[in-house]
Amino acid sequence: MSQVHVHRVEVCFGDCDPAGIVFFPNFSKWMDTASLAFFMACGVPPWRELVKTRGIIGTPLLEIHTRFLKPATYGETIEIHTSVEEWGRKTFRHRHLVRRGDDLLCEGTETRAFCVREPDGRIRSIPIPEDIQALCL
Amino acid sequence: MSQVHVHRVEVCFGDCDPAGIVFFPNFSKWMDTASLAFFMACGVPPWRELVKTRGIIGTPLLEIHTRFLKPATYGETIEIHTSVEEWGRKTFRHRHLVRRGDDLLCEGTETRAFCVREPDGRIRSIPIPEDIQALCL
Amino acid sequence: MSQVHVHRVEVCFGDCDPAGIVFFPNFSKWMDTASLAFFMACGVPPWRELVKTRGIIGTPLLEIHTRFLKPATYGETIEIHTSVEEWGRKTFRHRHLVRRGDDLLCEGTETRAFCVREPDGRIRSIPIPEDIQALCL
Amino acid sequence: MSQVHVHRVEVCFGDCDPAGIVFFPNFSKWMDTASLAFFMACGVPPWRELVKTRGIIGTPLLEIHTRFLKPATYGETIEIHTSVEEWGRKTFRHRHLVRRGDDLLCEGTETRAFCVREPDGRIRSIPIPEDIQALCL
Repeated sequence: MSQVHVHRVEVCFGDCDPAGIVFFPNFSKWMDTASLAFFMACGVPPWRELVKTRGIIGTPLLEIHTRFLKPATYGETIEIHTSVEEWGRKTFRHRHLVRRGDDLLCEGTETRAFCVREPDGRIRSIPIPEDIQALCL
Repeated sequence: MSQVHVHRVEVCFGDCDPAGIVFFPNFSKWMDTASLAFFMACGVPPWRELVKTRGIIGTPLLEIHTRFLKPATYGETIEIHTSVEEWGRKTFRHRHLVRRGDDLLCEGTETRAFCVREPDGRIRSIPIPEDIQALCL
Repeated sequence: MSQVHVHRVEVCFGDCDPAGIVFFPNFSKWMDTASLAFFMACGVPPWRELVKTRGIIGTPLLEIHTRFLKPATYGETIEIHTSVEEWGRKTFRHRHLVRRGDDLLCEGTETRAFCVREPDGRIRSIPIPEDIQALCL
Repeated sequence: MSQVHVHRVEVCFGDCDPAGIVFFPNFSKWMDTASLAFFMACGVPPWRELVKTRGIIGTPLLEIHTRFLKPATYGETIEIHTSVEEWGRKTFRHRHLVRRGDDLLCEGTETRAFCVREPDGRIRSIPIPEDIQALCL
């Protein structure tokens, strides 16, 4: 359970492919943006500050699952409704609903982990910081 | 001379490169979006309608010239101020000023032509449609 | 069952994010490219020809499911091993394995349908063309 | 004067826009990739190593100037011929010629500077490292 944040996107010409519809990886990009917007709306600092204060580089993806129901095109405004539907010990799962007015265009989940960078440059997941989780409820 | 349109962009994590700043081709993408937003704000239909009614597929680029003055990063909102600084017979030149508050981040010109698609699939420029130009003044 | 096609990608600086690793939607883009490369390697014409001869605009995505195991960065070459693991009547499912040498970086499925554009502009799925399927086995 | 490096790109479906041709900012992305490929072919380490050994984060863009002569589309292979046409004290200028067989599709220049990141996070240009320049001649 968590708050729900709505992120608005204006679809651009360059987001669309030769079929005239949104090139689907852009939906993944927008869900990623919606994830960060969710945390920032909850009061979490952007990753470039957290990396300095706590070594946290962000919340890399472990898994995504997306269903595409209706296409969108440029000149349209879409909304991404983002929440956290499950908090584990080291991972959490976002749910994103992409809407254009009353139409559900696309829905998906993202499984992510908070990660730090080790001194040797490797990226390692950490338990979900309790204070960050508390901000999102 | 023309109207001036302001297009707003929220910079995303995925717009930035390993140096942590906007990957510069995104400025070109946003200027392209600002160009279409300019025409639509002036009352010109989107290209996907013009292609049906008049065969016009859009205004492909002939030339761009951009100077990058200051970097931007994710979580920031920038504004693109777009106008047409010169109308020729078959080409026109946009000027885009990209600002973050009082800072000028980037400025550039785009030379474009209105184009139609020939029956053989080739793209051909046409004289600037007078009614479209009139909408933009 | 199907043939297996290997598509090679050189990871670019601009494919990576501020954490210095591939921005994950690029894996979806590369799987999409690998899908078209698979069909073309099997002898299927590119979509821009099929749209003229048979009205087929391509194979839009219905669903994707991807697991990210290890990150990649620029200067690396990765391989996408693509096959069709299931053919339905109107949909088929690709499997993509993304490797860097012996490392499995990412694996995913894509469910797609062959689609045509209706005279009113809407996109509609069709039964999988038997001749195209036969080319892929 | 410098060496000339040829970087090969296979144009993807997702690189193309609703007009069916390469969305032009992708040419800027490919020129950027060709710039790094040029330096690496000359024996310069990738930026992620130079940032550790010498603090150099890369060669951010100061200015680009590009002329688009002919369009390209997916399924085509293009070549970018990259050299340095002028070395200044703190900046240098790349020339990129984008070819498809004998056709010149696009040509452009990029003015860049080698940059380091200051302790306060700001990015600052430095004189062109003589040893790096020597590798490129």
